[in-house]
Amino acid sequence: MGEFELIRNFFAAAPCAQGGEGVALGIGDDCALLAIPTGEQLAISTDTLVAGVHFADPCDPFLLGQRSLAVAVSDLAAMGATPIAFTLALTLPTVTTDWLQAYARGLSLMAQSCRVALVGGDTTRGPLSMTMTVFGRVPNGLALTRSGAQPGDLLCVGGELGNGAGALPLVLGERTAEPAIADPLLAHYWSPQPQLALGQALRGKATAALDISDGLLADCGHIALASKVAVQVECDRLPLSSALVAFLGKAGAQNAALSGGDDYVLAFTLPSVELPPLLAEGWPIHVVGRIVAGQGVTLLDSDGQDITPQTRGYQHFRESP
Amino acid sequence: MGEFELIRNFFAAAPCAQGGEGVALGIGDDCALLAIPTGEQLAISTDTLVAGVHFADPCDPFLLGQRSLAVAVSDLAAMGATPIAFTLALTLPTVTTDWLQAYARGLSLMAQSCRVALVGGDTTRGPLSMTMTVFGRVPNGLALTRSGAQPGDLLCVGGELGNGAGALPLVLGERTAEPAIADPLLAHYWSPQPQLALGQALRGKATAALDISDGLLADCGHIALASKVAVQVECDRLPLSSALVAFLGKAGAQNAALSGGDDYVLAFTLPSVELPPLLAEGWPIHVVGRIVAGQGVTLLDSDGQDITPQTRGYQHFRESP
Repeated sequence: MGEFELIRNFFAAAPCAQGGEGVALGIGDDCALLAIPTGEQLAISTDTLVAGVHFADPCDPFLLGQRSLAVAVSDLAAMGATPIAFTLALTLPTVTTDWLQAYARGLSLMAQSCRVALVGGDTTRGPLSMTMTVFGRVPNGLALTRSGAQPGDLLCVGGELGNGAGALPLVLGERTAEPAIADPLLAHYWSPQPQLALGQALRGKATAALDISDGLLADCGHIALASKVAVQVECDRLPLSSALVAFLGKAGAQNAALSGGDDYVLAFTLPSVELPPLLAEGWPIHVVGRIVAGQGVTLLDSDGQDITPQTRGYQHFRESP
Repeated sequence: MGEFELIRNFFAAAPCAQGGEGVALGIGDDCALLAIPTGEQLAISTDTLVAGVHFADPCDPFLLGQRSLAVAVSDLAAMGATPIAFTLALTLPTVTTDWLQAYARGLSLMAQSCRVALVGGDTTRGPLSMTMTVFGRVPNGLALTRSGAQPGDLLCVGGELGNGAGALPLVLGERTAEPAIADPLLAHYWSPQPQLALGQALRGKATAALDISDGLLADCGHIALASKVAVQVECDRLPLSSALVAFLGKAGAQNAALSGGDDYVLAFTLPSVELPPLLAEGWPIHVVGRIVAGQGVTLLDSDGQDITPQTRGYQHFRESP
């Protein structure tokens, strides 16, 4: 089967490649064309997942399809952007119809959930990896960046932390757990839900935002650096799922939340006056610390003592991958 | 060295990552932000290059930096788009400072030549490959697609064909040649010049266009399919460089031009009335055939005899890679 047939069969025909608001020209030409409404900017993010580095190989292609897109779209949520479209650059060692069909099904399910259309890409032979580039739109001046946090702001997160990292030993087959514990953790790992509505609700309110992919401490370090402030995280305020605490114990769950990565939950800074109306609207916001003058990230226990660990979050280029 | 330092040191500091017209927010946040002028659409294209499939491994990282970006930007030329920005998803087996510096130098040189700014990306550990996603802008309704060719149009190309394919045995070390032959072929292979100005000049004039990446015959097949017409290519009209003919002989040079790929020269269809003013403006346009009613691609000799070969152009997923 030729490259062109491959792309046409499995992706151009996938539900996620049909139509899409803002898509003027989809798959099949040299470029796709997007229409960006007047008064809005285009938000772009790129993520690569490599077999054996970012996911186990082999793994379920349906779940991989879901997860690979969700991870990329989460960056749009972190900017407060409304998703429009994405491209997929897929590198495969062999062409296997069953694999491609299952991958395309997972991809399409997540694409429909996020209202994002596949508009192009490239398919090549090589070691299994995929690069997603996602596109969204956001009103001029309202994108949520990492650089606006101010001393006095609250540090908030949009949901429970640590579930993605907690799932990893289950994903890798290193541990097992009863379904009541394993199922919610694995669901979070394989099908993280980008917090798009929350990101859009934070436009004009949050002073800084990002999605947690490297662990709360490492990602707060990005806000501290970009905003030229210090971030204080209060360990006892971390929202932890009962499944995670049952699986790892409280200390293990806290460690997963602080340093584990793979959460794809929003972390953001908020002037305290903005919090009550957002809570009244029902947004799942947890205050986990605050912003002060200074630099870096500090972890505090319930007595306000500094218990900052030496870890710096997950690094793809760490010494022992 | 951590992933973040790696990206910051070698790419955020590269000349190509500084500023850029239309770039509202560059490297360093969850997303980049682009401003698209009112009345224009965004053009997007993605290309992946895999070591051992699309380029020899090892190869010169400076040359690879140039070529990897040029190949992607060529798709913007094919749409008549004006380049704005690009993202780079780079997967590396090891982090080597010398390699990265040389790659970034080649990338920056091509980026400056094409006036395109690096606005983001991802850097991961894994088998060497790179995915470029490029962004351009084009006035509403003036993008050059593949689907508008009409019977009676001329089939044209924007320059000599076959040089990229002709260079391949030199690149792979399978053959050698004297500098007068090798240098121009290798220059075309490693540093193809996207025909951006020509693409923009063809807006509102060409009825269909693409850039030749799979060989003239295979790429004309894309126009024939999308436009629902037949394309006739006249073998004796193919523009061939003297270096290519000296290296491969006339028949070999014609074969490289027809089926070799890697040209990144524009092929387009033009109502005959549009040709004289474009030639008068000095554009390097060669008429190589014409569009007729029907379907598919036919190769004709100087007597008008059908000599269509059975090849279908370069396929990444061909049987013997």
